[in-house]
Amino acid sequence: MGNDLNILILSCGTRNKIVQYFKKELGNNGLVIATDCSNLAPALYEADKHFIVPRMGDEGYLDVILSICKENNIKAVLSLIDPELSLLAEHKQAFLDIGTMPIISDSNVVDMCFDKYKMFEFLVQNGFQTVKSYVDKEQFYMDVEAGIINYPVFVKPVKGSASINISKVTSKEEIELLFGRFDNLMIQEFMDGTEYGADVYIDMISGDPVAIFTKEKLKMRAGETDKSVSIKDNQLFELIKKFVKVIGFKGIIDIDIFKVKGEYYISEVNPRFGGGYPHAFESGVNIPEMIINNINGNMNVDVIGEYEEGINMMKFNEIIVMRNKVIAFT
Amino acid sequence: MGNDLNILILSCGTRNKIVQYFKKELGNNGLVIATDCSNLAPALYEADKHFIVPRMGDEGYLDVILSICKENNIKAVLSLIDPELSLLAEHKQAFLDIGTMPIISDSNVVDMCFDKYKMFEFLVQNGFQTVKSYVDKEQFYMDVEAGIINYPVFVKPVKGSASINISKVTSKEEIELLFGRFDNLMIQEFMDGTEYGADVYIDMISGDPVAIFTKEKLKMRAGETDKSVSIKDNQLFELIKKFVKVIGFKGIIDIDIFKVKGEYYISEVNPRFGGGYPHAFESGVNIPEMIINNINGNMNVDVIGEYEEGINMMKFNEIIVMRNKVIAFT
Repeated sequence: MGNDLNILILSCGTRNKIVQYFKKELGNNGLVIATDCSNLAPALYEADKHFIVPRMGDEGYLDVILSICKENNIKAVLSLIDPELSLLAEHKQAFLDIGTMPIISDSNVVDMCFDKYKMFEFLVQNGFQTVKSYVDKEQFYMDVEAGIINYPVFVKPVKGSASINISKVTSKEEIELLFGRFDNLMIQEFMDGTEYGADVYIDMISGDPVAIFTKEKLKMRAGETDKSVSIKDNQLFELIKKFVKVIGFKGIIDIDIFKVKGEYYISEVNPRFGGGYPHAFESGVNIPEMIINNINGNMNVDVIGEYEEGINMMKFNEIIVMRNKVIAFT
Repeated sequence: MGNDLNILILSCGTRNKIVQYFKKELGNNGLVIATDCSNLAPALYEADKHFIVPRMGDEGYLDVILSICKENNIKAVLSLIDPELSLLAEHKQAFLDIGTMPIISDSNVVDMCFDKYKMFEFLVQNGFQTVKSYVDKEQFYMDVEAGIINYPVFVKPVKGSASINISKVTSKEEIELLFGRFDNLMIQEFMDGTEYGADVYIDMISGDPVAIFTKEKLKMRAGETDKSVSIKDNQLFELIKKFVKVIGFKGIIDIDIFKVKGEYYISEVNPRFGGGYPHAFESGVNIPEMIINNINGNMNVDVIGEYEEGINMMKFNEIIVMRNKVIAFT
């Protein structure tokens, strides 16, 4: 399998569609190999080959992943969970040294994505409209007095994933209660508008954004987009292009954006495949193919906005049942 | 289509698997027809035919459903959302009069399922172990003093579906705050044990339970079972048989059960297909077939416990995309 284009997907969890898409695009040119620390991660059983590995935080985890890469001639590696993105970014060179390309932005960029207040400061300093944020509650109270911001607001951890521990609060009393109980919280403006998501691919070779798929989020469930509809707006495309170039993203990212009174506000970035990426793929925005092009040493052509508007996406539950190690797809 | 075994699934939402299973079991013997008030309900597009209908609470809703039944020669109707179960049960006779069998328990039984305190009282009066519950907070405080119950406890609406508005509380202050803010709350014991689910079919003709599938819940997500494993325990089967006979359930129900220190405690009942039913079906417990038998005037044979233990179920997200009214499955 010397020249095979094998791809490793770490912490695959329930992201079966991502594994399916890579298998489809690779065809007979390589294997999709998946890992997870749980044998109850259904996406494992979609892959050509899978490994149950230690937990991401366990000692020796990186060595296990590196040796899987070496032994399986892995050409590219990506992860589907946030904590692991920092690990991949920090150890990018160790992967490159054994011929594996981590599909990830640089370490400082990844870290900024997971520090909501740092990202806020960066956005403000670079002239991008974003969601008003405070780590200093006294400053927030002053801005309330001055009429710069109003209740309700969200109180959330500065470093947090998904919608874990987010509270919508309406009074100073509640803020005092939360700040008294937890450390490292921030206060964020409630955006009374429409929420959008953008799936963006920044070519690993040229560093240019080559694919942007934008959708309006119609319904959320457990912090994930459950229903969405594709939209196209050149103003939004230009904003995203400028943003990803200024910050220097690489590979696949997912951006959360609000639109309030006709203006776009950048909210958050996940520097990985977002949970709503299948909407983009099924609408023709084929990022697995772009990743394979990059592994082959080829730059991708710009296909920004090359999809139809008004395509609806609806999620539902599929299941896998597993009988005594024999796997049955349903 | 005079003798077709057409089945109507109301408020199908995201329950694509249920529509798929009925289609599979009916084969060429009839159509599966689905309704929803939203054209973004993905299960609509799995059905042989679908109707977008008014909202369940809207005036004239029942007449719309009855006329769909008449015009499409519907032999059986069932709903997948809680509020509609009461409507079906209350108007059972109107459906029977036009030759449609509602797959639902009697009205008083359905109402009891949605009043958690009434269900608690019924269980206690009939000698079933259940989760300690209080609508009288003063009585609860006295029982805390007496050492009969301890914090943490759950505070939830007496009538509520899924995990909406459930708070885990650890102090009298929090209980006072919640009871001061909302009406019709109850306090429920926190069960520190293992959670089980049972999918049960009670024959519409004989009134006897003929299928029971039990599973341990391994992981929850947004109030639904995300991963589970099948179990078999005759003691649990006997408890369930006794319980469904005493209360007089009919058709398909889903029971939540806790096991603490070796003892089973009945918690709640949804008198409809539970969100985890696909686990039972894929393990061979074929309730759509039993419903079809009943519509054909045939009683089902008892298959309680006829499945394998240790079958794991794992959910993941599948999607449907819809381009300008042309439907594409992925």
